[in-house]
Amino acid sequence: MSAHKATCISCSNIAFIKYWGNRDAALRIPLNNSISMNLDHATTTTTVAFDAALNDDEIVIGDAPANAAQRARVIAHLGRVRALAKIETRVRVESRNNFPMGAGIASSASAFAALSLAATRAAGLELPERELSILARQGSGSACRSIPGGFVEWLAGSENANSYAVSIAPPSFWDLRDVIALVSTEEKKVGSTDGHAAAASSHFLAERVNALPARLARVRRALFARDLAALGPAIEEDAVELHLIAMTSAPPIYYWSPGMVRVIQAAQRWRADGLAVYFTLDAGPNVHLICEAQDADQVAARAREISDVQQVIVNAPGGAARLIEEHLF
Amino acid sequence: MSAHKATCISCSNIAFIKYWGNRDAALRIPLNNSISMNLDHATTTTTVAFDAALNDDEIVIGDAPANAAQRARVIAHLGRVRALAKIETRVRVESRNNFPMGAGIASSASAFAALSLAATRAAGLELPERELSILARQGSGSACRSIPGGFVEWLAGSENANSYAVSIAPPSFWDLRDVIALVSTEEKKVGSTDGHAAAASSHFLAERVNALPARLARVRRALFARDLAALGPAIEEDAVELHLIAMTSAPPIYYWSPGMVRVIQAAQRWRADGLAVYFTLDAGPNVHLICEAQDADQVAARAREISDVQQVIVNAPGGAARLIEEHLF
Repeated sequence: MSAHKATCISCSNIAFIKYWGNRDAALRIPLNNSISMNLDHATTTTTVAFDAALNDDEIVIGDAPANAAQRARVIAHLGRVRALAKIETRVRVESRNNFPMGAGIASSASAFAALSLAATRAAGLELPERELSILARQGSGSACRSIPGGFVEWLAGSENANSYAVSIAPPSFWDLRDVIALVSTEEKKVGSTDGHAAAASSHFLAERVNALPARLARVRRALFARDLAALGPAIEEDAVELHLIAMTSAPPIYYWSPGMVRVIQAAQRWRADGLAVYFTLDAGPNVHLICEAQDADQVAARAREISDVQQVIVNAPGGAARLIEEHLF
Repeated sequence: MSAHKATCISCSNIAFIKYWGNRDAALRIPLNNSISMNLDHATTTTTVAFDAALNDDEIVIGDAPANAAQRARVIAHLGRVRALAKIETRVRVESRNNFPMGAGIASSASAFAALSLAATRAAGLELPERELSILARQGSGSACRSIPGGFVEWLAGSENANSYAVSIAPPSFWDLRDVIALVSTEEKKVGSTDGHAAAASSHFLAERVNALPARLARVRRALFARDLAALGPAIEEDAVELHLIAMTSAPPIYYWSPGMVRVIQAAQRWRADGLAVYFTLDAGPNVHLICEAQDADQVAARAREISDVQQVIVNAPGGAARLIEEHLF
């Protein structure tokens, strides 16, 4: 094979119903369906170049070589692509987020979605969306939701071939906003992979999983009806539940920080004052403030006034992972 | 009946296994046993004087007449005492806490324990401890745990006559300390009575109740072995669980505040550095830092350095509710 190169961009996503806990940890087959929105202002752009002249894979994230843990995870993913393409060629990977690294935005979702698309295209493959989503999922579970566009549901499935995400509404369907309040924190977070593994030790996990189909149905109904007053309480419930499963894991994982609680309390006050805004959380310190487009400026302005908030990023619904550039030498 | 007067003092208590949710809300029969320690520096002193010259009950709390809600609850409790004593005489009640009012310390526990003892003695009754505990429970559930001394278990029971607290170890059994960090908060708390009522709406409550017998056994074993390293994780689990039941109630109740989370994180850091301290929480903003006597000064000093902490109160195990003074006219 001669050298091939592709550059792809992918959005991160915010889950309205969370992915937390696996049925199969190695394959990242989740315990439950999840529903998310792609984030148009939190993206990863990744270039993959297969180059027969290379002796080893070169992985650059941002401006620096990947660290050992990142490198191992990316190379394992490239191995999946090589197996599909039946090639052994080494690659150069350059990946860059447009949001601050380590800020607690789910960068592995956009990173593994962009990597999956760029690496397969550079390897000369044109996978259908479903196969791409299955591939991305194996790199990082929530990355499968960043392959399709707009509002997305990850169908949990039961094995590798039937666990993938589909778009349930395009970005234009509902002009929703995710105003991300990046919260400062002194605490190190526990990685999501470890959090998923710990979930099974929570004695509340079974009840969460049993109760989820009804909440998933509420969220779908609210989405299709563009009904924020119905969507909001359901996503807040689910966000809190992720944290309580984490806090009741053995040993417990506390993602909560003083700043996070301050933003949550502020959002509750704003809502009591008539501003239609709801929060959701990931396995990190940031608070995602969900509102409609016409309220986003006000939500962002108020969030910036909170002392613990370092930065605010306003996101509209984002599109599918897509190819930007391709070179076939 | 001629005028009778009695003054009693009672400790507040901190629960290691929490009371949250009732089997019978009107009688305050709880869903589960709970275990607590009386707090020797968080007390209520109450004087009750029956006086045939009074046209109406006079209720003074601290330096002011009780507000309408307090008054109604105290008068309902006095009604129970009058029914037992078969009298109708009006009373003067003066009650005073030695800790700041509205600071989120469970003042209703010490208040209704002291009121139960003072009112029955002033009415000429000498109830055995079990009957006093049953009486106090009807005024405020956790008050039944402030009647016996030291370390106490509330036997949930199934009806009024068998739901009461007993001492499982005297104050001298273990020189434990509860260093209460009073945390400032902008948020109003939801009263415990409303919180108990909401508990049934949490879809996690049944699992909590199912899992509690094993945790109660762990706490009893750790207490009897004076083993803080075994007690600590169990009480932290239970504290977090009370809050997650509250946060998953419909509508959700958020007792967490930024300052509370800051103190929790600090305690976790101190412990990682070798200081044997564990936290517990009530349905309010304060953090109770549990340690052994030899570490209490250091825990208190560190707690005072946290910006959100307004005041620190160090408590040893407290005794039973007791009579201070009695006048029979």
